[in-house]
Amino acid sequence: MSQATLTISSRNYSSWSLRGWLLCVMAGLDVEERMLSVDDPSARAELLLLSPSFLVPCLTHDGVKVWDTLAIAAYLDEITPKAGLLPAEVKARAHCRSICGEMHSGFSNLRSALPMNLKAHYPGFKVWAGAQADIDRVTEIWRDCLDTYGGPYLFGALSMADAMYAPVCLRFLTYDVPLDPVSRAYCSTIAQWPVLQQWIEAAKTEPEELEELDAEF
Amino acid sequence: MSQATLTISSRNYSSWSLRGWLLCVMAGLDVEERMLSVDDPSARAELLLLSPSFLVPCLTHDGVKVWDTLAIAAYLDEITPKAGLLPAEVKARAHCRSICGEMHSGFSNLRSALPMNLKAHYPGFKVWAGAQADIDRVTEIWRDCLDTYGGPYLFGALSMADAMYAPVCLRFLTYDVPLDPVSRAYCSTIAQWPVLQQWIEAAKTEPEELEELDAEF
Ligand SMILES: N[C@@H](CCC(=O)N[C@@H](CS)C(=O)NCC(=O)O)C(=O)O
Ligand SMILES: N[C@@H](CCC(=O)N[C@@H](CS)C(=O)NCC(=O)O)C(=O)O
Repeated sequence: MSQATLTISSRNYSSWSLRGWLLCVMAGLDVEERMLSVDDPSARAELLLLSPSFLVPCLTHDGVKVWDTLAIAAYLDEITPKAGLLPAEVKARAHCRSICGEMHSGFSNLRSALPMNLKAHYPGFKVWAGAQADIDRVTEIWRDCLDTYGGPYLFGALSMADAMYAPVCLRFLTYDVPLDPVSRAYCSTIAQWPVLQQWIEAAKTEPEELEELDAEF
Repeated sequence: MSQATLTISSRNYSSWSLRGWLLCVMAGLDVEERMLSVDDPSARAELLLLSPSFLVPCLTHDGVKVWDTLAIAAYLDEITPKAGLLPAEVKARAHCRSICGEMHSGFSNLRSALPMNLKAHYPGFKVWAGAQADIDRVTEIWRDCLDTYGGPYLFGALSMADAMYAPVCLRFLTYDVPLDPVSRAYCSTIAQWPVLQQWIEAAKTEPEELEELDAEF
Protein backbone atom coordinates (compact mmCIF):
# COMPACT_ATOMS: atom_id res chain seq x y z
CA MET A 1 0.00 0.00 0.00
CA SER A 2 1.51 3.31 -1.05
CA GLN A 3 2.30 6.14 1.33
CA ALA A 4 -0.54 8.33 2.52
CA THR A 5 -0.60 11.64 4.35
CA LEU A 6 -3.26 12.64 6.83
CA THR A 7 -3.50 16.23 7.96
CA ILE A 8 -4.63 16.39 11.56
CA SER A 9 -4.73 19.02 14.27
CA SER A 10 -4.59 18.39 18.01
CA ARG A 11 -4.54 14.77 19.13
CA ASN A 12 -5.99 15.84 22.45
CA TYR A 13 -8.85 18.01 21.22
CA SER A 14 -9.67 17.12 17.63
CA SER A 15 -12.24 14.36 17.50
CA TRP A 16 -12.45 14.40 13.70
CA SER A 17 -8.69 13.98 13.39
CA LEU A 18 -8.99 10.93 15.62
CA ARG A 19 -11.81 9.47 13.54
CA GLY A 20 -9.89 9.95 10.29
CA TRP A 21 -6.75 8.42 11.76
CA LEU A 22 -8.60 5.37 13.13
CA LEU A 23 -10.15 4.77 9.71
CA CYS A 24 -6.73 4.92 8.01
CA VAL A 25 -5.25 2.50 10.51
CA MET A 26 -8.22 0.12 10.13
CA ALA A 27 -7.72 0.21 6.36
CA GLY A 28 -4.07 -0.72 6.83
CA LEU A 29 -2.82 2.48 5.22
CA ASP A 30 0.80 3.41 5.77
CA VAL A 31 -0.17 6.88 6.88
CA GLU A 32 2.13 9.72 7.78
CA GLU A 33 0.44 12.30 9.98
CA ARG A 34 1.00 15.90 9.13
CA MET A 35 0.27 17.80 12.30
CA LEU A 36 -0.58 21.44 11.87
CA SER A 37 2.38 23.22 13.36
CA VAL A 38 2.00 24.20 16.96
CA ASP A 39 5.13 26.33 16.74
CA ASP A 40 3.76 28.41 13.92
CA PRO A 41 0.60 30.07 15.18
CA SER A 42 0.18 32.06 11.99
CA ALA A 43 -0.03 28.92 9.85
CA ARG A 44 -2.49 27.42 12.27
CA ALA A 45 -4.46 30.60 12.68
CA GLU A 46 -4.74 30.82 8.93
CA LEU A 47 -6.17 27.35 8.79
CA LEU A 48 -8.56 28.06 11.57
CA LEU A 49 -9.84 31.14 9.87
CA LEU A 50 -12.77 29.16 8.90
CA SER A 51 -12.97 28.29 5.31
CA PRO A 52 -14.73 24.93 5.69
CA SER A 53 -12.31 23.49 3.16
CA PHE A 54 -9.62 23.99 5.81
CA LEU A 55 -11.13 21.52 8.20
CA VAL A 56 -9.13 18.50 9.28
CA PRO A 57 -8.76 15.63 8.62
CA CYS A 58 -7.66 15.62 4.99
CA LEU A 59 -6.18 12.50 3.37
CA THR A 60 -3.81 12.52 0.41
CA HIS A 61 -3.11 9.15 -1.17
CA ASP A 62 -2.06 8.07 -4.67
CA GLY A 63 -2.72 11.52 -6.10
CA VAL A 64 -6.22 11.55 -4.59
CA LYS A 65 -7.22 14.17 -2.04
CA VAL A 66 -10.18 13.47 0.26
CA TRP A 67 -11.38 15.73 3.00
CA ASP A 68 -14.36 15.16 5.27
CA THR A 69 -14.32 12.09 7.47
CA LEU A 70 -17.23 10.22 5.87
CA ALA A 71 -15.72 10.73 2.42
CA ILE A 72 -12.41 9.38 3.75
CA ALA A 73 -14.24 6.32 5.12
CA ALA A 74 -15.97 5.69 1.78
CA TYR A 75 -12.71 6.15 -0.13
CA LEU A 76 -10.86 3.74 2.15
CA ASP A 77 -13.65 1.18 1.88
CA GLU A 78 -13.42 1.46 -1.89
CA ILE A 79 -9.66 0.89 -2.08
CA THR A 80 -9.51 -1.70 0.73
CA PRO A 81 -12.85 -3.52 0.61
CA LYS A 82 -11.37 -6.45 2.58
CA ALA A 83 -10.62 -4.22 5.58
CA GLY A 84 -14.23 -4.54 6.69
CA LEU A 85 -14.86 -0.84 7.25
CA LEU A 86 -18.46 -1.63 6.37
CA PRO A 87 -20.33 -4.79 7.45
CA ALA A 88 -20.72 -7.47 4.76
CA GLU A 89 -24.49 -7.63 4.56
CA VAL A 90 -26.43 -4.97 2.61
CA LYS A 91 -28.95 -4.30 5.38
CA ALA A 92 -26.23 -3.94 8.02
CA ARG A 93 -24.27 -1.66 5.69
CA ALA A 94 -27.29 0.61 5.31
CA HIS A 95 -27.71 0.64 9.08
CA CYS A 96 -24.01 1.37 9.60
CA ARG A 97 -24.04 4.27 7.14
CA SER A 98 -27.21 5.70 8.70
CA ILE A 99 -25.73 5.92 12.18
CA CYS A 100 -22.42 7.23 10.81
CA GLY A 101 -24.47 9.92 9.06
CA GLU A 102 -26.21 10.81 12.33
CA MET A 103 -22.84 11.25 13.99
CA HIS A 104 -21.50 13.28 11.08
CA SER A 105 -24.29 15.84 10.92
CA GLY A 106 -25.85 15.73 14.36
CA PHE A 107 -25.33 15.73 18.11
CA SER A 108 -24.21 19.35 18.15
CA ASN A 109 -25.29 19.82 21.77
CA LEU A 110 -23.24 16.86 22.87
CA ARG A 111 -20.29 18.08 20.84
CA SER A 112 -20.29 21.56 22.30
CA ALA A 113 -21.19 20.62 25.89
CA LEU A 114 -18.68 17.77 26.18
CA PRO A 115 -15.70 18.66 23.98
CA MET A 116 -13.07 15.98 23.56
CA ASN A 117 -10.15 16.42 25.97
CA LEU A 118 -8.17 13.24 26.43
CA LYS A 119 -5.97 14.70 29.17
CA ALA A 120 -8.88 15.61 31.41
CA HIS A 121 -11.17 13.76 33.78
CA TYR A 122 -14.17 15.38 35.47
CA PRO A 123 -15.75 13.04 38.00
CA GLY A 124 -19.35 14.01 38.74
CA PHE A 125 -19.54 16.46 35.82
CA LYS A 126 -23.04 17.95 35.55
CA VAL A 127 -24.38 17.40 32.04
CA TRP A 128 -26.55 20.16 30.56
CA ALA A 129 -30.09 18.96 29.80
CA GLY A 130 -29.76 19.90 26.12
CA ALA A 131 -26.89 17.43 25.75
CA GLN A 132 -28.80 14.69 27.57
CA ALA A 133 -31.16 14.18 24.61
CA ASP A 134 -28.11 13.57 22.41
CA ILE A 135 -26.65 11.17 24.96
CA ASP A 136 -29.95 9.29 25.06
CA ARG A 137 -30.05 8.98 21.29
CA VAL A 138 -26.41 7.83 21.09
CA THR A 139 -26.92 5.11 23.67
CA GLU A 140 -30.17 4.07 21.96
CA ILE A 141 -28.19 3.66 18.72
CA TRP A 142 -25.56 1.59 20.53
CA ARG A 143 -28.02 -0.67 22.35
CA ASP A 144 -29.90 -1.29 19.11
CA CYS A 145 -26.67 -2.28 17.29
CA LEU A 146 -25.21 -4.37 20.09
CA ASP A 147 -28.50 -6.18 20.49
CA THR A 148 -28.96 -6.77 16.75
CA TYR A 149 -25.39 -7.81 15.89
CA GLY A 150 -24.29 -9.30 19.22
CA GLY A 151 -21.27 -7.05 19.94
CA PRO A 152 -18.62 -6.55 21.14
CA TYR A 153 -18.39 -3.82 18.46
CA LEU A 154 -21.41 -2.07 17.00
CA PHE A 155 -21.69 -4.38 14.01
CA GLY A 156 -20.10 -7.43 15.62
CA ALA A 157 -16.59 -6.95 14.26
CA LEU A 158 -14.95 -3.52 14.13
CA SER A 159 -16.38 -1.20 11.47
CA MET A 160 -16.29 2.47 10.53
CA ALA A 161 -19.14 3.04 12.99
CA ASP A 162 -16.79 2.31 15.91
CA ALA A 163 -14.33 4.87 14.57
CA MET A 164 -17.12 7.43 14.25
CA TYR A 165 -18.38 6.86 17.79
CA ALA A 166 -15.01 6.28 19.51
CA PRO A 167 -14.57 9.97 20.48
CA VAL A 168 -18.04 9.88 22.04
CA CYS A 169 -17.03 6.91 24.18
CA LEU A 170 -13.96 8.83 25.34
CA ARG A 171 -16.08 11.89 26.14
CA PHE A 172 -18.47 9.79 28.22
CA LEU A 173 -15.48 8.54 30.22
CA THR A 174 -13.90 12.01 30.55
CA TYR A 175 -17.13 13.62 31.77
CA ASP A 176 -18.19 10.67 33.88
CA VAL A 177 -21.56 10.40 32.11
CA PRO A 178 -23.94 7.92 33.81
CA LEU A 179 -24.74 5.13 31.36
CA ASP A 180 -26.77 1.95 31.18
CA PRO A 181 -24.68 -1.24 31.60
CA VAL A 182 -24.66 -2.15 27.89
CA SER A 183 -23.41 1.28 26.83
CA ARG A 184 -20.88 1.36 29.65
CA ALA A 185 -19.48 -2.00 28.54
CA TYR A 186 -19.24 -0.75 24.95
CA CYS A 187 -17.30 2.34 26.09
CA SER A 188 -14.84 0.10 27.95
CA THR A 189 -14.39 -2.11 24.92
CA ILE A 190 -13.58 0.93 22.79
CA ALA A 191 -11.29 2.43 25.42
CA GLN A 192 -9.26 -0.80 25.32
CA TRP A 193 -8.87 -0.79 21.53
CA PRO A 194 -5.06 -0.93 21.15
CA VAL A 195 -4.70 1.63 18.32
CA LEU A 196 -6.91 4.04 20.21
CA GLN A 197 -4.72 3.58 23.30
CA GLN A 198 -1.77 4.51 21.12
CA TRP A 199 -3.43 7.77 20.05
CA ILE A 200 -4.40 8.60 23.63
CA GLU A 201 -0.83 8.10 24.84
CA ALA A 202 0.44 10.48 22.15
CA ALA A 203 -2.29 12.99 23.02
CA LYS A 204 -1.19 13.04 26.63
CA THR A 205 2.28 14.26 25.71
CA GLU A 206 1.02 16.94 23.35
CA PRO A 207 2.15 20.47 24.26
CA GLU A 208 -0.54 22.77 25.55
CA GLU A 209 0.04 25.75 23.24
CA LEU A 210 -2.73 24.30 21.14
CA GLU A 211 -5.20 24.88 23.88
CA GLU A 212 -4.34 28.53 24.27
CA LEU A 213 -4.60 29.05 20.54
CA ASP A 214 -7.94 27.26 20.35
CA ALA A 215 -9.29 29.57 22.99
CA GLU A 216 -9.01 32.49 20.62
CA PHE A 217 -11.57 31.02 18.28
CA MET B 1 -37.07 -2.41 -9.25
CA SER B 2 -39.24 -3.13 -6.24
CA GLN B 3 -41.39 -0.57 -4.49
CA ALA B 4 -39.73 1.88 -2.16
CA THR B 5 -41.13 4.29 0.40
CA LEU B 6 -39.58 7.62 1.23
CA THR B 7 -40.75 9.51 4.30
CA ILE B 8 -40.61 13.23 3.66
CA SER B 9 -41.97 16.32 5.34
CA SER B 10 -42.79 19.61 3.64
CA ARG B 11 -41.99 19.87 -0.06
CA ASN B 12 -41.77 23.62 0.30
CA TYR B 13 -39.53 23.84 3.35
CA SER B 14 -37.63 20.57 3.78
CA SER B 15 -34.39 20.66 1.86
CA TRP B 16 -33.29 17.22 3.07
CA SER B 17 -36.56 15.68 1.88
CA LEU B 18 -35.87 17.20 -1.53
CA ARG B 19 -32.31 15.83 -1.62
CA GLY B 20 -33.46 12.32 -0.68
CA TRP B 21 -36.21 12.39 -3.28
CA LEU B 22 -33.91 13.58 -6.06
CA LEU B 23 -31.48 10.77 -5.25
CA CYS B 24 -34.25 8.16 -5.43
CA VAL B 25 -35.47 9.52 -8.76
CA MET B 26 -31.92 9.57 -10.15
CA ALA B 27 -31.49 5.94 -9.08
CA GLY B 28 -34.68 5.05 -10.95
CA LEU B 29 -36.44 3.85 -7.82
CA ASP B 30 -40.19 3.44 -7.98
CA VAL B 31 -40.65 5.51 -4.86
CA GLU B 32 -43.86 6.22 -3.03
CA GLU B 33 -43.61 9.33 -0.89
CA ARG B 34 -45.06 9.14 2.58
CA MET B 35 -45.72 12.68 3.57
CA LEU B 36 -45.99 13.32 7.28
CA SER B 37 -49.62 14.12 7.75
CA VAL B 38 -50.45 17.80 7.74
CA ASP B 39 -53.94 17.03 9.01
CA ASP B 40 -52.64 15.30 12.08
CA PRO B 41 -50.57 17.78 14.04
CA SER B 42 -50.04 15.37 16.90
CA ALA B 43 -48.30 12.82 14.64
CA ARG B 44 -46.17 15.54 13.17
CA ALA B 45 -45.46 17.18 16.49
CA GLU B 46 -44.37 13.84 17.81
CA LEU B 47 -41.93 13.46 14.99
CA LEU B 48 -40.64 16.95 15.41
CA LEU B 49 -39.99 16.41 19.06
CA LEU B 50 -36.43 16.00 18.16
CA SER B 51 -35.11 12.57 18.45
CA PRO B 52 -32.53 12.73 15.65
CA SER B 53 -33.76 9.34 14.47
CA PHE B 54 -37.01 11.06 13.55
CA LEU B 55 -35.43 13.24 10.93
CA VAL B 56 -36.57 12.97 7.35
CA PRO B 57 -35.86 11.62 4.80
CA CYS B 58 -36.02 7.91 5.57
CA LEU B 59 -36.02 5.30 2.82
CA THR B 60 -37.51 1.82 3.13
CA HIS B 61 -36.75 -0.57 0.29
CA ASP B 62 -36.55 -4.36 0.06
CA GLY B 63 -36.67 -4.75 3.83
CA VAL B 64 -33.81 -2.27 4.24
CA LYS B 65 -34.31 0.95 6.18
CA VAL B 66 -31.91 3.85 5.56
CA TRP B 67 -32.14 7.26 7.15
CA ASP B 68 -29.76 10.15 6.68
CA THR B 69 -29.38 11.52 3.17
CA LEU B 70 -25.74 10.54 2.60
CA ALA B 71 -26.46 6.99 3.72
CA ILE B 72 -29.41 6.91 1.30
CA ALA B 73 -27.11 8.10 -1.50
CA ALA B 74 -24.51 5.42 -0.71
CA TYR B 75 -27.21 2.72 -0.51
CA LEU B 76 -28.71 3.77 -3.84
CA ASP B 77 -25.29 3.84 -5.47
CA GLU B 78 -24.67 0.34 -4.18
CA ILE B 79 -27.91 -1.14 -5.54
CA THR B 80 -27.94 0.88 -8.79
CA PRO B 81 -24.26 1.43 -9.66
CA LYS B 82 -25.17 2.19 -13.29
CA ALA B 83 -27.26 5.19 -12.29
CA GLY B 84 -24.11 7.28 -12.03
CA LEU B 85 -24.82 8.77 -8.62
CA LEU B 86 -21.04 8.89 -8.25
CA PRO B 87 -18.61 9.80 -11.04
CA ALA B 88 -16.78 6.88 -12.66
CA GLU B 89 -13.21 7.83 -11.85
CA VAL B 90 -11.79 7.18 -8.36
CA LYS B 91 -10.34 10.67 -7.94
CA ALA B 92 -13.57 12.35 -9.02
CA ARG B 93 -15.53 10.06 -6.71
CA ALA B 94 -13.36 11.11 -3.77
CA HIS B 95 -13.89 14.76 -4.73
CA CYS B 96 -17.63 14.24 -5.08
CA ARG B 97 -17.92 12.58 -1.68
CA SER B 98 -15.83 15.31 -0.05
CA ILE B 99 -18.09 18.13 -1.20
CA CYS B 100 -21.21 16.10 -0.37
CA GLY B 101 -19.73 15.69 3.11
CA GLU B 102 -19.19 19.45 3.40
CA MET B 103 -22.83 20.04 2.53
CA HIS B 104 -23.99 17.35 4.93
CA SER B 105 -22.17 18.61 8.01
CA GLY B 106 -21.53 22.27 7.28
CA PHE B 107 -22.92 25.58 6.08
CA SER B 108 -25.08 26.02 9.15
CA ASN B 109 -25.11 29.81 8.79
CA LEU B 110 -26.34 29.57 5.23
CA ARG B 111 -28.94 27.02 6.25
CA SER B 112 -30.36 29.12 9.05
CA ALA B 113 -30.10 32.52 7.36
CA LEU B 114 -31.60 31.42 4.03
CA PRO B 115 -34.10 28.65 4.78
CA MET B 116 -35.57 26.88 1.80
CA ASN B 117 -38.96 28.30 0.82
CA LEU B 118 -39.90 27.45 -2.72
CA LYS B 119 -43.04 29.61 -2.71
CA ALA B 120 -41.18 32.77 -1.83
CA HIS B 121 -39.05 35.31 -3.68
CA TYR B 122 -37.20 38.13 -1.96
CA PRO B 123 -35.63 40.47 -4.50
CA GLY B 124 -32.79 42.48 -2.96
CA PHE B 125 -32.68 40.34 0.21
CA LYS B 126 -29.86 41.52 2.50
CA VAL B 127 -27.61 38.55 3.32
CA TRP B 128 -26.14 38.44 6.84
CA ALA B 129 -22.33 38.57 6.79
CA GLY B 130 -22.04 35.25 8.65
CA ALA B 131 -23.82 33.50 5.82
CA GLN B 132 -21.65 35.19 3.19
CA ALA B 133 -18.60 33.06 4.13
CA ASP B 134 -20.70 29.95 3.48
CA ILE B 135 -21.91 31.36 0.16
CA ASP B 136 -18.31 32.09 -0.82
CA ARG B 137 -17.22 28.56 0.01
CA VAL B 138 -20.16 27.00 -1.86
CA THR B 139 -19.46 28.97 -5.02
CA GLU B 140 -15.74 28.18 -4.71
CA ILE B 141 -16.67 24.48 -4.62
CA TRP B 142 -18.88 24.91 -7.68
CA ARG B 143 -16.35 26.87 -9.73
CA ASP B 144 -13.66 24.33 -8.92
CA CYS B 145 -15.88 21.43 -10.07
CA LEU B 146 -17.25 23.13 -13.16
CA ASP B 147 -13.74 24.14 -14.19
CA THR B 148 -12.25 20.68 -13.53
CA TYR B 149 -15.00 18.56 -15.09
CA GLY B 150 -16.35 20.97 -17.70
CA GLY B 151 -20.00 21.20 -16.55
CA PRO B 152 -22.88 21.59 -17.05
CA TYR B 153 -23.32 19.61 -13.81
CA LEU B 154 -20.72 19.57 -11.03
CA PHE B 155 -19.02 16.40 -12.24
CA GLY B 156 -19.93 16.75 -15.93
CA ALA B 157 -22.99 14.49 -15.91
CA LEU B 158 -25.53 14.59 -13.09
CA SER B 159 -24.30 13.06 -9.82
CA MET B 160 -25.30 12.95 -6.16
CA ALA B 161 -23.45 16.24 -5.67
CA ASP B 162 -26.07 18.05 -7.76
CA ALA B 163 -28.82 16.58 -5.57
CA MET B 164 -26.96 17.70 -2.45
CA TYR B 165 -26.46 21.26 -3.70
CA ALA B 166 -29.81 21.68 -5.54
CA PRO B 167 -31.58 23.22 -2.52
CA VAL B 168 -28.73 25.72 -2.22
CA CYS B 169 -29.26 26.77 -5.86
CA LEU B 170 -32.95 27.29 -5.13
CA ARG B 171 -32.16 29.34 -2.03
CA PHE B 172 -29.79 31.57 -4.01
CA LEU B 173 -32.63 32.22 -6.46
CA THR B 174 -35.23 32.77 -3.72
CA TYR B 175 -33.06 35.25 -1.80
CA ASP B 176 -31.66 36.91 -4.92
CA VAL B 177 -28.06 36.25 -3.84
CA PRO B 178 -25.51 38.04 -6.06
CA LEU B 179 -23.31 35.43 -7.74
CA ASP B 180 -20.40 35.21 -10.15
CA PRO B 181 -21.45 34.28 -13.74
CA VAL B 182 -20.29 30.66 -13.50
CA SER B 183 -22.25 30.00 -10.32
CA ARG B 184 -25.28 31.84 -11.66
CA ALA B 185 -25.27 29.68 -14.78
CA TYR B 186 -25.03 26.54 -12.64
CA CYS B 187 -28.04 27.65 -10.58
CA SER B 188 -30.05 28.15 -13.77
CA THR B 189 -29.04 24.72 -15.04
CA ILE B 190 -30.24 23.13 -11.80
CA ALA B 191 -33.44 25.20 -11.72
CA GLN B 192 -34.27 23.78 -15.15
CA TRP B 193 -33.72 20.16 -14.14
CA PRO B 194 -37.10 18.60 -15.07
CA VAL B 195 -37.56 16.40 -11.97
CA LEU B 196 -36.72 19.34 -9.75
CA GLN B 197 -39.33 21.43 -11.59
CA GLN B 198 -41.83 18.69 -10.83
CA TRP B 199 -41.04 18.90 -7.07
CA ILE B 200 -41.27 22.70 -7.13
CA GLU B 201 -44.69 22.60 -8.79
CA ALA B 202 -45.95 20.21 -6.12
CA ALA B 203 -44.42 22.40 -3.38
CA LYS B 204 -46.31 25.43 -4.65
CA THR B 205 -49.65 23.74 -4.11
CA GLU B 206 -48.77 22.51 -0.64
CA PRO B 207 -51.16 23.75 2.07
CA GLU B 208 -49.71 26.29 4.48
CA GLU B 209 -50.67 24.55 7.73
CA LEU B 210 -47.14 23.19 7.66
CA GLU B 211 -45.76 26.64 8.03
CA GLU B 212 -47.84 27.48 11.07
CA LEU B 213 -46.93 24.21 12.65
CA ASP B 214 -43.22 24.73 11.99
CA ALA B 215 -43.43 28.07 13.72
CA GLU B 216 -44.12 26.34 17.00
CA PHE B 217 -40.73 24.67 17.00
N1 LIG C 1 -17.43 17.32 8.70
C1 LIG C 1 -16.01 17.38 8.95
C2 LIG C 1 -15.75 17.96 10.31
C3 LIG C 1 -14.31 18.28 10.53
C4 LIG C 1 -14.08 19.26 11.66
O1 LIG C 1 -15.01 19.90 12.16
N2 LIG C 1 -12.81 19.41 12.04
C5 LIG C 1 -12.40 20.34 13.07
C6 LIG C 1 -11.47 19.68 14.06
S1 LIG C 1 -12.19 18.42 15.01
C7 LIG C 1 -11.57 21.41 12.43
O2 LIG C 1 -10.87 21.15 11.46
N3 LIG C 1 -11.57 22.62 12.99
C8 LIG C 1 -10.55 23.57 12.63
C9 LIG C 1 -9.24 23.11 13.23
O3 LIG C 1 -9.22 22.33 14.21
O4 LIG C 1 -8.18 23.52 12.73
C10 LIG C 1 -15.43 15.98 8.79
O5 LIG C 1 -16.22 15.04 8.76
O6 LIG C 1 -14.22 15.82 8.63
N1 LIG D 1 -28.43 14.75 8.38
C1 LIG D 1 -29.82 14.54 8.03
C2 LIG D 1 -30.55 15.86 8.10
C3 LIG D 1 -32.02 15.67 8.00
C4 LIG D 1 -32.82 16.86 8.56
O1 LIG D 1 -32.28 17.76 9.20
N2 LIG D 1 -34.12 16.86 8.26
C5 LIG D 1 -35.02 17.87 8.73
C6 LIG D 1 -35.92 18.38 7.61
S1 LIG D 1 -35.09 19.21 6.33
C7 LIG D 1 -35.99 17.24 9.70
O2 LIG D 1 -36.32 16.07 9.58
N3 LIG D 1 -36.53 18.01 10.67
C8 LIG D 1 -37.64 17.56 11.41
C9 LIG D 1 -38.88 17.64 10.50
O3 LIG D 1 -38.85 18.39 9.49
O4 LIG D 1 -39.85 16.95 10.76
C10 LIG D 1 -29.87 13.92 6.66
O5 LIG D 1 -28.84 13.94 5.97
O6 LIG D 1 -30.89 13.37 6.25
